[in-house]
Amino acid sequence: MAEQEVGKVKVDLALIHYPVVNKNQEIIGSAITNLDLHDIARAAKTYGVDSFYVVTPYSDQQELFRELLDHWLTGHGAKYNSNRGEALALVQICDDLNQLFERVTEKWQGRPTVLATCAQEKHSNIWPYSVVRQRISEGERFLILFGTAWGLAQEAIDAGDGILPPITALGNYNHLSVRSAAAIVLDRLLGVRE
Amino acid sequence: MAEQEVGKVKVDLALIHYPVVNKNQEIIGSAITNLDLHDIARAAKTYGVDSFYVVTPYSDQQELFRELLDHWLTGHGAKYNSNRGEALALVQICDDLNQLFERVTEKWQGRPTVLATCAQEKHSNIWPYSVVRQRISEGERFLILFGTAWGLAQEAIDAGDGILPPITALGNYNHLSVRSAAAIVLDRLLGVRE
Repeated sequence: MAEQEVGKVKVDLALIHYPVVNKNQEIIGSAITNLDLHDIARAAKTYGVDSFYVVTPYSDQQELFRELLDHWLTGHGAKYNSNRGEALALVQICDDLNQLFERVTEKWQGRPTVLATCAQEKHSNIWPYSVVRQRISEGERFLILFGTAWGLAQEAIDAGDGILPPITALGNYNHLSVRSAAAIVLDRLLGVRE
Repeated sequence: MAEQEVGKVKVDLALIHYPVVNKNQEIIGSAITNLDLHDIARAAKTYGVDSFYVVTPYSDQQELFRELLDHWLTGHGAKYNSNRGEALALVQICDDLNQLFERVTEKWQGRPTVLATCAQEKHSNIWPYSVVRQRISEGERFLILFGTAWGLAQEAIDAGDGILPPITALGNYNHLSVRSAAAIVLDRLLGVRE
Protein backbone atom coordinates (compact mmCIF):
# COMPACT_ATOMS: atom_id res chain seq x y z
CA MET A 1 0.00 0.00 0.00
CA ALA A 2 1.06 3.59 -0.38
CA GLU A 3 2.77 4.76 2.79
CA GLN A 4 0.59 6.82 5.10
CA GLU A 5 1.46 9.98 6.85
CA VAL A 6 0.68 9.34 10.50
CA GLY A 7 -2.36 11.29 11.59
CA LYS A 8 -3.66 11.13 8.05
CA VAL A 9 -5.28 7.71 8.24
CA LYS A 10 -8.92 7.91 9.18
CA VAL A 11 -9.10 4.91 11.44
CA ASP A 12 -10.76 4.76 14.86
CA LEU A 13 -11.00 1.93 17.37
CA ALA A 14 -13.73 1.20 19.88
CA LEU A 15 -13.51 -1.13 22.85
CA ILE A 16 -17.01 -2.32 23.70
CA HIS A 17 -17.99 -3.25 27.27
CA TYR A 18 -21.67 -3.64 26.41
CA PRO A 19 -23.17 -5.55 24.64
CA VAL A 20 -20.66 -8.40 24.89
CA VAL A 21 -21.07 -12.06 25.82
CA ASN A 22 -19.83 -14.17 28.69
CA LYS A 23 -18.47 -17.71 28.41
CA ASN A 24 -22.01 -19.04 28.15
CA GLN A 25 -22.77 -16.66 25.28
CA GLU A 26 -25.14 -14.63 27.45
CA ILE A 27 -25.22 -10.86 26.89
CA ILE A 28 -23.46 -8.96 29.67
CA GLY A 29 -21.74 -5.68 30.42
CA SER A 30 -18.07 -6.08 31.39
CA ALA A 31 -15.88 -4.06 33.73
CA ILE A 32 -13.23 -1.68 32.38
CA THR A 33 -9.75 -3.21 32.62
CA ASN A 34 -6.92 -0.82 33.30
CA LEU A 35 -4.45 -2.64 31.07
CA ASP A 36 -6.87 -2.82 28.14
CA LEU A 37 -6.91 0.95 28.07
CA HIS A 38 -3.16 1.37 28.39
CA ASP A 39 -2.17 -1.34 25.95
CA ILE A 40 -4.70 -0.52 23.26
CA ALA A 41 -4.12 3.23 23.58
CA ARG A 42 -0.37 2.69 23.20
CA ALA A 43 -0.89 0.49 20.13
CA ALA A 44 -3.39 3.00 18.70
CA LYS A 45 -0.89 5.84 19.17
CA THR A 46 1.87 3.77 17.57
CA TYR A 47 -0.18 3.11 14.43
CA GLY A 48 -1.59 6.61 14.01
CA VAL A 49 -5.20 5.81 15.00
CA ASP A 50 -7.27 8.98 15.34
CA SER A 51 -9.46 8.15 18.37
CA PHE A 52 -9.85 5.19 20.72
CA TYR A 53 -13.42 5.06 22.02
CA VAL A 54 -14.25 3.21 25.21
CA VAL A 55 -17.91 2.25 25.28
CA THR A 56 -19.59 1.54 28.60
CA PRO A 57 -23.05 2.50 29.84
CA TYR A 58 -22.07 2.32 33.53
CA SER A 59 -21.51 5.69 35.18
CA ASP A 60 -19.31 4.26 37.95
CA GLN A 61 -17.08 2.71 35.31
CA GLN A 62 -16.94 5.96 33.40
CA GLU A 63 -15.98 7.75 36.62
CA LEU A 64 -13.20 5.25 37.35
CA PHE A 65 -11.98 5.70 33.87
CA ARG A 66 -11.90 9.51 34.17
CA GLU A 67 -9.81 9.18 37.36
CA LEU A 68 -7.38 6.97 35.52
CA LEU A 69 -7.14 9.47 32.66
CA ASP A 70 -6.60 12.37 35.09
CA HIS A 71 -3.75 10.50 36.73
CA TRP A 72 -1.90 10.01 33.45
CA LEU A 73 -2.87 13.21 31.67
CA THR A 74 -2.44 15.77 34.44
CA GLY A 75 -1.59 14.00 37.73
CA HIS A 76 1.42 12.16 39.07
CA GLY A 77 1.47 9.76 36.13
CA ALA A 78 2.00 12.62 33.70
CA LYS A 79 5.22 13.52 35.49
CA TYR A 80 6.32 9.91 35.94
CA ASN A 81 5.75 8.81 32.36
CA SER A 82 4.47 11.29 29.81
CA ASN A 83 4.28 8.61 27.08
CA ARG A 84 1.25 7.10 28.75
CA GLY A 85 -0.62 10.38 28.66
CA GLU A 86 0.29 10.87 25.04
CA ALA A 87 -1.43 7.57 24.21
CA LEU A 88 -4.36 7.93 26.61
CA ALA A 89 -5.14 11.36 25.15
CA LEU A 90 -6.65 9.45 22.21
CA VAL A 91 -9.33 7.96 24.45
CA GLN A 92 -12.94 9.10 24.59
CA ILE A 93 -15.81 7.60 26.54
CA CYS A 94 -19.18 6.76 24.99
CA ASP A 95 -22.33 5.45 26.62
CA ASP A 96 -23.39 3.05 23.90
CA LEU A 97 -23.05 2.08 20.26
CA ASN A 98 -25.49 4.74 19.09
CA GLN A 99 -23.55 7.51 20.76
CA LEU A 100 -20.33 6.05 19.35
CA PHE A 101 -21.66 6.09 15.80
CA GLU A 102 -23.00 9.62 16.23
CA ARG A 103 -19.69 10.93 17.56
CA VAL A 104 -17.59 9.34 14.84
CA THR A 105 -19.95 10.44 12.11
CA GLU A 106 -19.88 13.99 13.44
CA LYS A 107 -16.08 13.99 13.67
CA TRP A 108 -15.55 12.83 10.11
CA GLN A 109 -18.64 14.58 8.75
CA GLY A 110 -19.80 11.26 7.38
CA ARG A 111 -20.32 7.75 8.69
CA PRO A 112 -17.21 5.55 8.57
CA THR A 113 -17.27 1.95 7.44
CA VAL A 114 -17.77 -0.02 10.65
CA LEU A 115 -16.05 -3.41 11.00
CA ALA A 116 -16.54 -5.79 13.90
CA THR A 117 -13.99 -8.31 15.10
CA CYS A 118 -14.76 -11.85 16.22
CA ALA A 119 -12.59 -14.83 17.14
CA GLN A 120 -15.02 -17.28 15.60
CA GLU A 121 -15.12 -18.48 12.01
CA LYS A 122 -18.91 -18.63 11.85
CA HIS A 123 -19.55 -15.37 9.99
CA SER A 124 -20.17 -14.41 6.41
CA ASN A 125 -19.49 -10.85 5.20
CA ILE A 126 -15.79 -11.12 6.06
CA TRP A 127 -13.53 -8.33 4.80
CA PRO A 128 -9.95 -9.54 4.20
CA TYR A 129 -7.21 -7.50 5.86
CA SER A 130 -5.60 -6.75 2.50
CA VAL A 131 -8.83 -5.17 1.21
CA VAL A 132 -9.27 -2.98 4.29
CA ARG A 133 -5.59 -2.02 4.22
CA GLN A 134 -5.93 -0.89 0.63
CA ARG A 135 -9.12 1.08 1.30
CA ILE A 136 -7.54 2.80 4.33
CA SER A 137 -4.65 3.84 2.11
CA GLU A 138 -7.16 5.32 -0.33
CA GLY A 139 -8.53 7.55 2.44
CA GLU A 140 -11.66 5.59 3.42
CA ARG A 141 -12.79 6.08 7.05
CA PHE A 142 -12.96 2.97 9.23
CA LEU A 143 -14.18 2.29 12.75
CA ILE A 144 -13.05 -1.08 14.16
CA LEU A 145 -15.02 -2.60 17.05
CA PHE A 146 -13.39 -4.88 19.62
CA GLY A 147 -15.31 -6.78 22.28
CA THR A 148 -14.21 -7.37 25.86
CA ALA A 149 -15.14 -10.50 27.89
CA TRP A 150 -15.93 -13.37 25.44
CA GLY A 151 -16.42 -10.98 22.55
CA LEU A 152 -19.00 -8.75 20.88
CA ALA A 153 -22.67 -9.70 21.15
CA GLN A 154 -24.36 -10.51 17.85
CA GLU A 155 -26.22 -7.21 18.03
CA ALA A 156 -22.90 -5.31 18.06
CA ILE A 157 -21.54 -7.41 15.20
CA ASP A 158 -24.71 -6.75 13.20
CA ALA A 159 -24.34 -2.99 13.78
CA GLY A 160 -21.26 -2.99 11.53
CA ASP A 161 -20.88 -3.19 7.77
CA GLY A 162 -18.67 -6.27 7.89
CA ILE A 163 -16.31 -8.36 9.99
CA LEU A 164 -12.54 -8.73 10.00
CA PRO A 165 -11.26 -12.31 9.78
CA PRO A 166 -10.49 -14.01 13.10
CA ILE A 167 -6.80 -14.12 13.98
CA THR A 168 -6.26 -17.80 13.94
CA ALA A 169 -2.87 -19.11 13.10
CA LEU A 170 -2.53 -22.64 11.82
CA GLY A 171 -3.75 -24.30 14.99
CA ASN A 172 -7.22 -24.20 16.43
CA TYR A 173 -6.43 -22.18 19.55
CA ASN A 174 -8.16 -18.81 19.18
CA HIS A 175 -8.12 -17.28 22.63
CA LEU A 176 -6.02 -14.16 22.24
CA SER A 177 -6.59 -11.35 24.70
CA VAL A 178 -8.38 -8.34 23.22
CA ARG A 179 -5.14 -6.42 23.88
CA SER A 180 -3.14 -8.79 21.68
CA ALA A 181 -5.87 -8.99 19.03
CA ALA A 182 -6.07 -5.21 18.73
CA ALA A 183 -2.29 -4.93 18.38
CA ILE A 184 -2.20 -7.56 15.63
CA VAL A 185 -5.17 -6.09 13.75
CA LEU A 186 -3.51 -2.65 13.77
CA ASP A 187 -0.26 -4.10 12.50
CA ARG A 188 -2.07 -5.96 9.72
CA LEU A 189 -4.00 -2.86 8.64
CA LEU A 190 -1.45 -0.11 9.25
CA GLY A 191 1.96 -1.67 9.90
CA VAL A 192 4.85 -0.80 7.64
CA ARG A 193 5.61 -3.84 5.50
CA GLU A 194 9.22 -4.68 4.78
CA MET B 1 6.31 -18.88 3.08
CA ALA B 2 5.36 -22.51 3.00
CA GLU B 3 2.56 -23.11 5.46
CA GLN B 4 3.61 -24.60 8.78
CA GLU B 5 2.05 -27.42 10.63
CA VAL B 6 1.44 -26.11 14.14
CA GLY B 7 3.79 -27.71 16.61
CA LYS B 8 6.32 -28.12 13.84
CA VAL B 9 7.87 -24.69 14.00
CA LYS B 10 10.89 -24.56 16.26
CA VAL B 11 10.30 -21.17 17.83
CA ASP B 12 10.56 -20.34 21.53
CA LEU B 13 9.95 -17.08 23.36
CA ALA B 14 11.55 -15.80 26.54
CA LEU B 15 10.32 -12.95 28.71
CA ILE B 16 13.28 -11.50 30.57
CA HIS B 17 12.88 -9.89 34.02
CA TYR B 18 16.63 -9.54 34.56
CA PRO B 19 18.75 -7.93 33.16
CA VAL B 20 16.44 -5.19 31.90
CA VAL B 21 16.61 -1.40 32.21
CA ASN B 22 14.44 1.17 33.95
CA LYS B 23 13.42 4.52 32.51
CA ASN B 24 16.85 5.93 33.36
CA GLN B 25 18.55 3.08 31.50
CA GLU B 26 19.85 1.58 34.75
CA ILE B 27 20.00 -2.21 34.97
CA ILE B 28 17.26 -3.62 37.18
CA GLY B 29 15.27 -6.78 37.83
CA SER B 30 11.52 -6.34 37.27
CA ALA B 31 8.53 -7.98 38.94
CA ILE B 32 6.50 -10.64 37.16
CA THR B 33 3.24 -9.21 35.78
CA ASN B 34 0.28 -11.54 35.78
CA LEU B 35 -1.10 -10.27 32.47
CA ASP B 36 2.24 -10.54 30.70
CA LEU B 37 2.18 -14.26 31.35
CA HIS B 38 -1.44 -14.75 30.32
CA ASP B 39 -1.33 -12.58 27.21
CA ILE B 40 1.98 -13.80 25.88
CA ALA B 41 1.19 -17.45 26.66
CA ARG B 42 -2.13 -17.13 24.80
CA ALA B 43 -0.40 -15.52 21.80
CA ALA B 44 2.34 -18.16 21.91
CA LYS B 45 -0.24 -20.95 21.93
CA THR B 46 -2.12 -19.32 19.05
CA TYR B 47 0.98 -19.18 16.84
CA GLY B 48 2.33 -22.64 17.65
CA VAL B 49 5.31 -21.55 19.76
CA ASP B 50 6.98 -24.51 21.43
CA SER B 51 7.91 -23.05 24.85
CA PHE B 52 7.49 -19.71 26.58
CA TYR B 53 10.31 -19.20 29.07
CA VAL B 54 9.95 -16.76 31.94
CA VAL B 55 13.35 -15.67 33.20
CA THR B 56 13.68 -14.29 36.72
CA PRO B 57 16.38 -14.88 39.32
CA TYR B 58 14.09 -14.03 42.27
CA SER B 59 12.84 -17.06 44.18
CA ASP B 60 9.83 -15.22 45.62
CA GLN B 61 8.80 -14.27 42.08
CA GLN B 62 9.27 -17.83 40.91
CA GLU B 63 7.11 -19.01 43.81
CA LEU B 64 4.35 -16.51 42.95
CA PHE B 65 4.50 -17.68 39.41
CA ARG B 66 4.18 -21.35 40.38
CA GLU B 67 1.06 -20.52 42.41
CA LEU B 68 -0.42 -18.76 39.41
CA LEU B 69 0.35 -21.76 37.20
CA ASP B 70 -1.17 -24.15 39.75
CA HIS B 71 -4.36 -22.13 39.81
CA TRP B 72 -4.83 -22.34 36.05
CA LEU B 73 -3.38 -25.78 35.40
CA THR B 74 -4.93 -27.77 38.23
CA GLY B 75 -6.86 -25.45 40.56
CA HIS B 76 -10.09 -23.48 40.31
CA GLY B 77 -8.93 -21.70 37.16
CA ALA B 78 -8.62 -24.98 35.29
CA LYS B 79 -12.32 -25.63 35.88
CA TYR B 80 -13.36 -22.05 35.20
CA ASN B 81 -11.46 -21.63 31.95
CA SER B 82 -9.40 -24.50 30.58
CA ASN B 83 -8.10 -22.38 27.68
CA ARG B 84 -5.87 -20.47 30.04
CA GLY B 85 -4.22 -23.64 31.29
CA GLU B 86 -3.73 -24.84 27.75
CA ALA B 87 -1.69 -21.69 27.03
CA LEU B 88 0.10 -21.49 30.38
CA ALA B 89 1.24 -25.09 29.98
CA LEU B 90 3.82 -23.71 27.52
CA VAL B 91 5.52 -21.74 30.29
CA GLN B 92 8.76 -22.70 31.98
CA ILE B 93 10.76 -20.76 34.56
CA CYS B 94 14.48 -20.12 34.27
CA ASP B 95 16.85 -18.41 36.69
CA ASP B 96 18.92 -16.52 34.16
CA LEU B 97 20.01 -16.24 30.56
CA ASN B 98 22.61 -18.99 30.89
CA GLN B 99 20.08 -21.47 32.20
CA LEU B 100 17.68 -20.41 29.45
CA PHE B 101 20.23 -21.07 26.71
CA GLU B 102 21.20 -24.41 28.28
CA ARG B 103 17.59 -25.57 28.48
CA VAL B 104 16.72 -24.58 24.93
CA THR B 105 19.89 -26.09 23.54
CA GLU B 106 19.20 -29.33 25.38
CA LYS B 107 15.60 -29.42 24.17
CA TRP B 108 16.47 -28.97 20.51
CA GLN B 109 19.78 -30.83 20.77
CA GLY B 110 21.49 -27.79 19.35
CA ARG B 111 21.60 -24.08 20.07
CA PRO B 112 18.87 -22.05 18.39
CA THR B 113 19.47 -18.72 16.72
CA VAL B 114 18.81 -16.17 19.45
CA LEU B 115 17.22 -12.86 18.50
CA ALA B 116 16.66 -9.97 20.85
CA THR B 117 13.94 -7.34 20.51
CA CYS B 118 14.37 -3.63 21.16
CA ALA B 119 12.12 -0.61 20.61
CA GLN B 120 15.06 1.59 19.66
CA GLU B 121 16.56 2.10 16.22
CA LYS B 122 20.12 2.34 17.48
CA HIS B 123 21.30 -1.17 16.65
CA SER B 124 23.16 -2.77 13.82
CA ASN B 125 22.85 -6.52 13.15
CA ILE B 126 19.11 -6.22 12.47
CA TRP B 127 17.39 -9.27 11.01
CA PRO B 128 14.36 -8.33 8.88
CA TYR B 129 11.11 -10.12 9.73
CA SER B 130 10.86 -11.53 6.21
CA VAL B 131 14.26 -13.21 6.56
CA VAL B 132 13.44 -14.77 9.92
CA ARG B 133 10.02 -15.85 8.66
CA GLN B 134 11.64 -17.63 5.74
CA ARG B 135 14.26 -19.32 7.93
CA ILE B 136 11.61 -20.50 10.39
CA SER B 137 9.72 -22.03 7.48
CA GLU B 138 12.90 -23.87 6.50
CA GLY B 139 13.08 -25.47 9.93
CA GLU B 140 15.65 -23.27 11.65
CA ARG B 141 15.33 -23.01 15.45
CA PHE B 142 14.78 -19.55 16.91
CA LEU B 143 14.60 -18.18 20.43
CA ILE B 144 13.15 -14.65 20.66
CA LEU B 145 13.96 -12.54 23.74
CA PHE B 146 11.57 -9.89 25.04
CA GLY B 147 12.42 -7.45 27.82
CA THR B 148 10.07 -6.25 30.54
CA ALA B 149 10.28 -2.77 32.14
CA TRP B 150 12.02 -0.37 29.69
CA GLY B 151 13.50 -3.24 27.69
CA LEU B 152 16.42 -5.65 27.57
CA ALA B 153 19.75 -4.52 29.00
CA GLN B 154 22.60 -4.29 26.51
CA GLU B 155 24.11 -7.43 28.00
CA ALA B 156 20.96 -9.40 27.11
CA ILE B 157 20.86 -7.93 23.62
CA ASP B 158 24.51 -8.84 23.12
CA ALA B 159 23.84 -12.42 24.20
CA GLY B 160 21.83 -12.98 21.02
CA ASP B 161 22.88 -13.51 17.42
CA GLY B 162 20.92 -10.53 16.12
CA ILE B 163 18.03 -8.16 16.74
CA LEU B 164 14.54 -7.94 15.26
CA PRO B 165 13.57 -4.50 13.91
CA PRO B 166 11.68 -2.26 16.33
CA ILE B 167 7.93 -2.11 15.71
CA THR B 168 7.61 1.49 14.79
CA ALA B 169 4.82 2.48 12.48
CA LEU B 170 5.12 5.70 10.54
CA GLY B 171 5.11 7.97 13.57
CA ASN B 172 7.78 8.26 16.21
CA TYR B 173 5.79 6.83 19.11
CA ASN B 174 7.40 3.53 20.06
CA HIS B 175 6.02 2.64 23.46
CA LEU B 176 4.09 -0.56 22.90
CA SER B 177 3.59 -2.83 25.88
CA VAL B 178 5.68 -6.01 25.77
CA ARG B 179 2.37 -7.88 25.50
CA SER B 180 1.45 -6.03 22.31
CA ALA B 181 4.97 -6.23 20.90
CA ALA B 182 5.13 -10.00 21.43
CA ALA B 183 1.75 -10.48 19.71
CA ILE B 184 2.80 -8.40 16.71
CA VAL B 185 6.19 -10.11 16.39
CA LEU B 186 4.53 -13.53 16.43
CA ASP B 187 2.05 -12.46 13.78
CA ARG B 188 4.84 -11.10 11.58
CA LEU B 189 6.92 -14.26 11.92
CA LEU B 190 4.23 -16.93 12.03
CA GLY B 191 0.89 -15.40 11.04
CA VAL B 192 -0.99 -16.79 8.08
CA ARG B 193 -0.78 -14.24 5.27
CA GLU B 194 -3.82 -13.66 3.10
